[in-house]
Amino acid sequence: MTSILTNIASSKSFGGWIKRYKHHSTSLNCDMVFAIYLPPQAETHTVPVLWWLSGLTCTDENFMQKAGAQRMAAELGIAIICPDTSPRGLSLPGEHDTYDFGSGAGFYLNATQAPWDKHYRMYDYLTLELPELIKAHFPVNGRESISGHSMGGHGALVLALRQPGRYASVSAFAPIANPGNCPWGQKAFSGYLGEDRNTWQQYDACALIGSGVSSQELLVDQGDADEFLAPQLGADALQAACAKAGQPLLYRTRSGYDHGYFFIASFIDDHLQYHAKYLYPTGAHH
Amino acid sequence: MTSILTNIASSKSFGGWIKRYKHHSTSLNCDMVFAIYLPPQAETHTVPVLWWLSGLTCTDENFMQKAGAQRMAAELGIAIICPDTSPRGLSLPGEHDTYDFGSGAGFYLNATQAPWDKHYRMYDYLTLELPELIKAHFPVNGRESISGHSMGGHGALVLALRQPGRYASVSAFAPIANPGNCPWGQKAFSGYLGEDRNTWQQYDACALIGSGVSSQELLVDQGDADEFLAPQLGADALQAACAKAGQPLLYRTRSGYDHGYFFIASFIDDHLQYHAKYLYPTGAHH
Repeated sequence: MTSILTNIASSKSFGGWIKRYKHHSTSLNCDMVFAIYLPPQAETHTVPVLWWLSGLTCTDENFMQKAGAQRMAAELGIAIICPDTSPRGLSLPGEHDTYDFGSGAGFYLNATQAPWDKHYRMYDYLTLELPELIKAHFPVNGRESISGHSMGGHGALVLALRQPGRYASVSAFAPIANPGNCPWGQKAFSGYLGEDRNTWQQYDACALIGSGVSSQELLVDQGDADEFLAPQLGADALQAACAKAGQPLLYRTRSGYDHGYFFIASFIDDHLQYHAKYLYPTGAHH
Repeated sequence: MTSILTNIASSKSFGGWIKRYKHHSTSLNCDMVFAIYLPPQAETHTVPVLWWLSGLTCTDENFMQKAGAQRMAAELGIAIICPDTSPRGLSLPGEHDTYDFGSGAGFYLNATQAPWDKHYRMYDYLTLELPELIKAHFPVNGRESISGHSMGGHGALVLALRQPGRYASVSAFAPIANPGNCPWGQKAFSGYLGEDRNTWQQYDACALIGSGVSSQELLVDQGDADEFLAPQLGADALQAACAKAGQPLLYRTRSGYDHGYFFIASFIDDHLQYHAKYLYPTGAHH
């Protein structure tokens, strides 16, 4: 696999660099863009990575522009990678008609239903192809953690649960934790995976935990003024599934906070510090 | 004057609130929206205000979403007000045709040329009308500082120079410091003020300083990779004018930084801490 990255933007940020790259994805059969924040430490040695998976309608840009994460990432010495949320540049039937299916709504799975199965393979893209590309082209040290918001929180939980031991730590903001039982998830899974609900379980954090899959502690922050809390996010189901299965869960209700980026920005430092404990277990990140 | 504010959005942020309000402006003869960040301290007592003036194409939203200022504003106890950058909702001839004139490009002046003179009176809006509205409706203590970016940096410098003693402190990121001598400013001033360049001087920081107007120290941060540095920003002219006139200027070149919000975000904490020294001269902001 010869992958060529084309740098399409670079901006200095807190002594490091936010860079955007375009490349052809063999998993997705289309050109994709991702963003990476390289902290100042990456100038002189390798650094660990935090994968950030974004929510519905987002691209690689939203988190970099709105979360305010670079300050703490620069302090801690953590690179942040923001992939896009779906394949791009295609014209599949209905792909661009609604915000919660198709473009901007890949749900971090491998589709099995035509025509989506030829392109919508975000699970492979994020677990296999893009990590290889990052390793080959950037000064990373092999340690990875994962986080995300809403649909991306779902992605972070599912990728961590399905790949035990891969990530040093996992967290989520307002995740779609039980997609098989909410309108967003049911629409996406029906379209991408078909009507056999058994096939949905591999991409549903609550179902995975209920079936005996376990992970290290899951850190979840959830605003109690979140306009999507019911019926989309499944926060109660996640807490119940973890309690029943003995899955460690650090669940924090944030009073007054809604679903948006102002919520994420308010607590992203806390998540970065949490991940840093695991990404730099000996504390030597300065 | 009876002004009615309509709250159109509220999000909790770092323990405080980002709120957006719509109101009818008598200065501008149209409905306007502004945003205010109220730090947690505003729940219990009055707080000082930082006015933030944005650049070309911006609205009240850009700074709130992208600068990452709320964390430090919450820590310091400073409210931030983000006005829009021009009158809105109008259809003047050519008003929406270019990004650097008309809507999104009010240049913080009072237009004298028809048809702009009936609406494009941002100077009055920002120095008279909006401050009255803020005083009447929010827990502010009367202390104000001002800052801004690019066209808004121009606005901050000009508003401070023309109102000696009004602001406790003034700063700017990559300001259009000599608009009478750059393409953006010449286009705007010709359209809003006409071809008599004598009328331009009252809205040109370098011309004001050259004519003997003085201010407290001006804090200016400027990236040396700023794609608009020449010929738009007049950074050399500002330094020369201040040196010649004895105007205190704290001018800092930021190596590698461009014109965008990643630059602002990297140094906004520093500006907030600078303003806090003057907004809370006794240090009692906690």
